[in-house]
Amino acid sequence: MSTRLAIIGGDAAGMSAASIARRRDPDLEIVAFERGPYTSYSACGIPYFVGGAVEDAQRLISRSPDEHRERGIDVRTRCEVLAADLRARRLTVRDAAGNETEEPFDQLVVATGAEAAPPPIPGAEAIEPARTVDAAERLAAALDRGGRCAVVIGAGYIGLEMAEAFVRRGLNTTMIEMAPQVMGTLDADMAVHVQRAAEDQGIRVVLGAAVEEIVTGENGAAVAVRTADQRYPADHVVIGTGARPVVALAEEAGLQVGDSGALRVDDHQRCPGHDGVYAAGDCAESHHRVLDRQVNIQLGTHANKQGRIAGLNATGGDARFPGVIGTAVSKICRCEVGRTGISEREAEQAELEVVSATIEDRTRAGYYPGSGPIWVKLVAEPGSGRLLGGQIVGVEGAAKRIDVLATAIWAGLAVDELALLDLSYAPPFSGVYDPLLIAARETAKLV
Amino acid sequence: MSTRLAIIGGDAAGMSAASIARRRDPDLEIVAFERGPYTSYSACGIPYFVGGAVEDAQRLISRSPDEHRERGIDVRTRCEVLAADLRARRLTVRDAAGNETEEPFDQLVVATGAEAAPPPIPGAEAIEPARTVDAAERLAAALDRGGRCAVVIGAGYIGLEMAEAFVRRGLNTTMIEMAPQVMGTLDADMAVHVQRAAEDQGIRVVLGAAVEEIVTGENGAAVAVRTADQRYPADHVVIGTGARPVVALAEEAGLQVGDSGALRVDDHQRCPGHDGVYAAGDCAESHHRVLDRQVNIQLGTHANKQGRIAGLNATGGDARFPGVIGTAVSKICRCEVGRTGISEREAEQAELEVVSATIEDRTRAGYYPGSGPIWVKLVAEPGSGRLLGGQIVGVEGAAKRIDVLATAIWAGLAVDELALLDLSYAPPFSGVYDPLLIAARETAKLV
Repeated sequence: MSTRLAIIGGDAAGMSAASIARRRDPDLEIVAFERGPYTSYSACGIPYFVGGAVEDAQRLISRSPDEHRERGIDVRTRCEVLAADLRARRLTVRDAAGNETEEPFDQLVVATGAEAAPPPIPGAEAIEPARTVDAAERLAAALDRGGRCAVVIGAGYIGLEMAEAFVRRGLNTTMIEMAPQVMGTLDADMAVHVQRAAEDQGIRVVLGAAVEEIVTGENGAAVAVRTADQRYPADHVVIGTGARPVVALAEEAGLQVGDSGALRVDDHQRCPGHDGVYAAGDCAESHHRVLDRQVNIQLGTHANKQGRIAGLNATGGDARFPGVIGTAVSKICRCEVGRTGISEREAEQAELEVVSATIEDRTRAGYYPGSGPIWVKLVAEPGSGRLLGGQIVGVEGAAKRIDVLATAIWAGLAVDELALLDLSYAPPFSGVYDPLLIAARETAKLV
Repeated sequence: MSTRLAIIGGDAAGMSAASIARRRDPDLEIVAFERGPYTSYSACGIPYFVGGAVEDAQRLISRSPDEHRERGIDVRTRCEVLAADLRARRLTVRDAAGNETEEPFDQLVVATGAEAAPPPIPGAEAIEPARTVDAAERLAAALDRGGRCAVVIGAGYIGLEMAEAFVRRGLNTTMIEMAPQVMGTLDADMAVHVQRAAEDQGIRVVLGAAVEEIVTGENGAAVAVRTADQRYPADHVVIGTGARPVVALAEEAGLQVGDSGALRVDDHQRCPGHDGVYAAGDCAESHHRVLDRQVNIQLGTHANKQGRIAGLNATGGDARFPGVIGTAVSKICRCEVGRTGISEREAEQAELEVVSATIEDRTRAGYYPGSGPIWVKLVAEPGSGRLLGGQIVGVEGAAKRIDVLATAIWAGLAVDELALLDLSYAPPFSGVYDPLLIAARETAKLV
């Protein structure tokens, strides 16, 4: 008797689950329901398409519905799952034509992703979130039609990337952020370097200002953004204030939602209490190994890994997702930014006592062409010296170094050991001491 | 009673020892004897000066003798140490004018470095090794005077860097290597990508050919290089066949030389059997943590660290050098190369059974501008899956990833754990799975 694996959501997590399940079990029936027209696309690539660095939004699609179908996955696009009955093991699905059907399943992967979380202000509904390939194409088309001024609400990494995209298109761009700093995942002393890079590129950065209204014109489109004491004209507005996991359907079906607002899962991506039901990707929680609690971090790399693990386990495997440590990287104008583990601020919020040191150095040997500044901040546990977090900002070649710190945190290395680790050296890549070694040495002095 | 620290050798290791000793003990008398006119220079930067990327050789000097003197270190340049009497605790030193003096010491740091090891062929003595700032300046001056053809003997990383420098200067450049591959620190399947990059840049690569003679002209300068079956005209010749530790003086004084040909030291850089005598840098051995034996790896970063540790311990400290794992990185034309731990060949030589996998991927998301190929090869222990080695070749952004593998090896991570590690992802920096994760996953399948 063949069984049926149903998947809700046709992007990174869902299609990773489908793909590995397909490879492992040729007899399994696999059906994936996707609300939009596309599958397996890179939402992370959207700002680069909007800014023109990537010419065709279709290039962001790594595998189309038809390509999945050729591999034996029954992808149903423009299909919305309205309800899930986990006991009867069937979904209620509405297709593009409005027809509703009941779809049975034996195993289920919930990969419903996340959705924009705009601030609750008048006019916010006028702004379509640019989170999908088709929405990105509509935004790019609107930009092509003209306009001089753009406002980006929110100065997280997506806000910054979108602001850069607008500047690249020649728009007069203002970024408005409620917090007193850009990039809240960094400590303020590191974020200031990112802000400077954004300003150098021509982005006007307004901090500590809450947007009160998105002013719309006669046709319903945005014409300005208003804070308490200023009105910013805007031919184009983007909201980059984060996203929340999409869990309503799953919650109604009886799945548990954790404190993070995302679906609870165990380390096999199983939904507790529901045999054969898995959740993965932006809609699910992950275990944060440094904070030792469940978090919701929406990132393509986690979605792919978790989806794969759900697909492995749904086909008789025994795979474990080992958790996350908050590693992230981005490129803002000429500035590269990386972070991993916990920041000083996160340590404070978690009431963890930490020591930290920040150093400024060069990305390459001082005499080597293209050498530029790099700042490294490390956070460590007093006494043991165990590395708990790292932040890096700098020019080209800076950010990917964050993976060294991620590996060190993962493995439980202490900063004094990191300080003498055999990292690579050659003039095009670093000074004779890599900046990470210097930062580790300085931090070790405070432990 | 103040004591006196003498240092033989005024480059990375020696001056690192002197500098930290100076900071820790203001009363200590510190004298450093250097054969050449310069101190603390970057020999690693010489190819970039020769090729013109660095305009002034003086920029390779990080601290001049006068700068050291201002900091209270008595640097004696153009001074050769002829003999060391470790029992009487004095050195016999000859200065630039030919005067010999006896120099007492209480503590001694031997940092005599390494010297070129040219092949034993007629004419080799005509080629001055470009290992010092002044020699580099002489080579650059010779290149400025003209010439059309250059031959580089040896295709290790220095040979490759010098060949690139010649090509940058418009010379018709041939590189001749006895081994059947370039870059012997890589396995052959990885070295082939480096060879292709060198050839793409216009370097003619001749493999498996032993040079039999450097043919010199009437004025004693090289005019050609001859192998068994070919004669290569050469206006300029560079020998890049490696270097050997300079140990004659120390050996005569009674210090032990290990199997590697370098001075034996313990993990505090102490020379066994001789209280208060330290060795550090290119002339000393290091413990290789993967091979678990003493090796001689000549690298500025080790020299700096070891010198610092010698200086710490010479001033009452208790610092330990934790050893090396063979990490190295270089940039050859458009090609970046990194390696760490052991290669498959080294495993074979050490009679270690290993598994290994090689993957080809992209440095950035496929759709992101500047994305290019990257090859990653991992070597792991069967059964445990412990990572033992890694090699990376690729375009910009490839090589520094080697530090992640170095950290993983250092910490004893297994490839299945590495495969799910929280490494950073964003389109300008990698695909949704970093190439290292993919390589680890493929290797884990073979364990």
